[in-house]
Amino acid sequence: MIEYRNLRIALLGAGNVGAQVASLLLEHREELAERIGAGIDLVGIAVRDLKAARKANLPEELLTTDAESLILGADIVIELIGGIEPARELILLALNSGADVITANKALLATHGPELFELAEQVGAQLYYEAAVGGAIPIIRPLHDSLAGDRVERILGIVNGTTNFILDRMHNAGVSLEDALATATELGFAEADPTADIEGYDAAQKAAIIASLAFHTVIPLESVYREGISAITLEQVEAAKRAGYVVKLLAICERIALGKGEGKGEGEGVSARVYPALVPEGHPLAAVHGSKNAVFVEAEAAGDLMFYGAGAGGMETASAVLGDLVSAARRHVIGGPGIAESRHAELEVLPMSAITTRYQITLVVEDRPGVLAGIAEIFRNHEVSVQTLVQSINDESGASLPAATLVIGTHEASESSLAATVAELASSAVVKSVVSVLRVEGL
Amino acid sequence: MIEYRNLRIALLGAGNVGAQVASLLLEHREELAERIGAGIDLVGIAVRDLKAARKANLPEELLTTDAESLILGADIVIELIGGIEPARELILLALNSGADVITANKALLATHGPELFELAEQVGAQLYYEAAVGGAIPIIRPLHDSLAGDRVERILGIVNGTTNFILDRMHNAGVSLEDALATATELGFAEADPTADIEGYDAAQKAAIIASLAFHTVIPLESVYREGISAITLEQVEAAKRAGYVVKLLAICERIALGKGEGKGEGEGVSARVYPALVPEGHPLAAVHGSKNAVFVEAEAAGDLMFYGAGAGGMETASAVLGDLVSAARRHVIGGPGIAESRHAELEVLPMSAITTRYQITLVVEDRPGVLAGIAEIFRNHEVSVQTLVQSINDESGASLPAATLVIGTHEASESSLAATVAELASSAVVKSVVSVLRVEGL
Repeated sequence: MIEYRNLRIALLGAGNVGAQVASLLLEHREELAERIGAGIDLVGIAVRDLKAARKANLPEELLTTDAESLILGADIVIELIGGIEPARELILLALNSGADVITANKALLATHGPELFELAEQVGAQLYYEAAVGGAIPIIRPLHDSLAGDRVERILGIVNGTTNFILDRMHNAGVSLEDALATATELGFAEADPTADIEGYDAAQKAAIIASLAFHTVIPLESVYREGISAITLEQVEAAKRAGYVVKLLAICERIALGKGEGKGEGEGVSARVYPALVPEGHPLAAVHGSKNAVFVEAEAAGDLMFYGAGAGGMETASAVLGDLVSAARRHVIGGPGIAESRHAELEVLPMSAITTRYQITLVVEDRPGVLAGIAEIFRNHEVSVQTLVQSINDESGASLPAATLVIGTHEASESSLAATVAELASSAVVKSVVSVLRVEGL
Repeated sequence: MIEYRNLRIALLGAGNVGAQVASLLLEHREELAERIGAGIDLVGIAVRDLKAARKANLPEELLTTDAESLILGADIVIELIGGIEPARELILLALNSGADVITANKALLATHGPELFELAEQVGAQLYYEAAVGGAIPIIRPLHDSLAGDRVERILGIVNGTTNFILDRMHNAGVSLEDALATATELGFAEADPTADIEGYDAAQKAAIIASLAFHTVIPLESVYREGISAITLEQVEAAKRAGYVVKLLAICERIALGKGEGKGEGEGVSARVYPALVPEGHPLAAVHGSKNAVFVEAEAAGDLMFYGAGAGGMETASAVLGDLVSAARRHVIGGPGIAESRHAELEVLPMSAITTRYQITLVVEDRPGVLAGIAEIFRNHEVSVQTLVQSINDESGASLPAATLVIGTHEASESSLAATVAELASSAVVKSVVSVLRVEGL
């Protein structure tokens, strides 16, 4: 076999993931070379602050603040800076200089993905991003390669470890969201400012990336409907538990058949959305505990698949980066196709108002004859069909009027019908309060 | 972009999977062409019996009994005949003629894999086999590509749907193995002769394939230790349930550090083995129900991963075949690396006697003073350390002597120490019977 020259690897960023990638690269140098068929040289690590980087115990001679020069001498550039700029400029520079790029930058891909993939295609370079979604879990490659001959119908993903930790703890330890968040912060599962996780921004970025790949269609981040978990109460979680459900923050990507005259030529659209939903306790996603992530894929031929593992963590994410590195490096040695984006389908991206799903609505109502009929009437007014109804009498000694709690499960209904139903329920004289409205997924 | 000529696809076999592959290929022809960047023509389907094949409703003009001629005119050959011959001869012919080969043939890969991969490497052709393990579940590609920069430490796989269905039903419906098998047969989850599934031969083939890939080492099928589930009783399953375990037939592939002077240079060996084991009920594998499969991977950097889905079925397996087809076809259009076998590690393959694991032993003993001390003595004699001991008094009115049931959990022990312990227990005067000896995995 012809000996191939050593490949030159540039690393941008020496944070949590970057430092792990560097040390794994240096530690497993020989093993990686055997798998690739060529040696790999880590030629430099670009950092913003040399002094801070020295603390990470990385070889000092590799550290530089001159990212541009480092990039121009590299075959493969690993971007682990995060955020939009300067990550975007540096990746564009790397691609323009003919280097392949590996990134874990979900924020950048979700907002500037099309620009980056287009440039990569133009210059014949590759952009790998397995680490951007699901940390260590192989999800980009299975969607891109393994299911390449199949049609993905729906994806339900638990793609944010912080919120899964919090919801799992509320469910199993019976603590409030605030207390669960405090524990998550203490254990290092939540950041100092947890807004991006709690409010679903992180999950929405990942939903945009996954949906774009699964449906061969550009899904802009703005078109991803998003609700976080900050309004979820312990009462909702416990009521869900009693009813046989688990509350999970889901990233949902779905192929939807369009009615006549609504869509573009193909008669299909796609939806990407993030919200807390009720998942039946027997569903594989319900067994995803703590800060673990999992992506549940429903494909036409393959049926149901699930990919489970650590969704974050420096070491875990580094594993995904190194997997991409071996693929990129093999491509250098042998040539051939990488993991280019695919946009040929160009399906219509549907707004939340075009989606139908099931709902569970919890009401406190007056406990007197005729109330149930009145409630049922309101659902019928908006063509929302009731599937289950469970009534329990509230034991509130001292309350002026007897009250009952109704938990109502609906058949599939549109967001707009549901919203109108809930509005009428809220203003009804017999309804004391609308306690909870949650979507049900995974049935 | 340069237009590429249509690729010529030959299909060998029109059974359950073959018929599905053919119809998906024909149905999704245009979609596949878009993903590949070239058209694909199914040029023929080789069958043994034209009359039988016509019943599968395949285009009659594609059917042929002349597999050799079909192969010689193809770019990519899909082998779905199964068994050793003529599958082996036909794959060798295809590779020698320069065609890439896609196969779902686990029996052939487990026994003649090295011969096939060697020829493929010599002639520069590719051999894809995602469908050989785990049906629709992408497992070969994640192990080969996604974890290429990581080190796999251990794999615990539920890779046989028939046995998982049976054990799951025993656990959840409380029926005997015979009754569960009858249901499996009725529902089409078990074959007329279920021996290959029940006795673990199918799982052992898959273990050999997975272990070879994960550890970059040839693992001959003969070196895979194998026990089936035919001796598992409902009593064992129910006792396991009470103790917080689920009985699962596991394919276990493990990297094992060798003691001084035992191994080859590297100081590491690998073990591949199949047996029914106790899995803690909180383990993700415990939630794999019915005929589903799942492969749980423990990697150095990635941590714990799990791949879950349908392990069999014509449609599901066809999805994996088509994923391979798109990869193979893209490689034709763009060139580049495929999914070649990797054997550079050449670790020592360890026999069962070199393995240590935990055990759960259930005994019925005489209920009188001194018995516990005598039992403990027997464990100490063989240096098997007891971790847990649960005693319950048997309520057998009419029995001549009072009896108690002991459930003993051990720390890690070697097979030989355990066997000696059990032998001494069985011959001990105070032990009425050794009810069950099961290994515990997944802790």
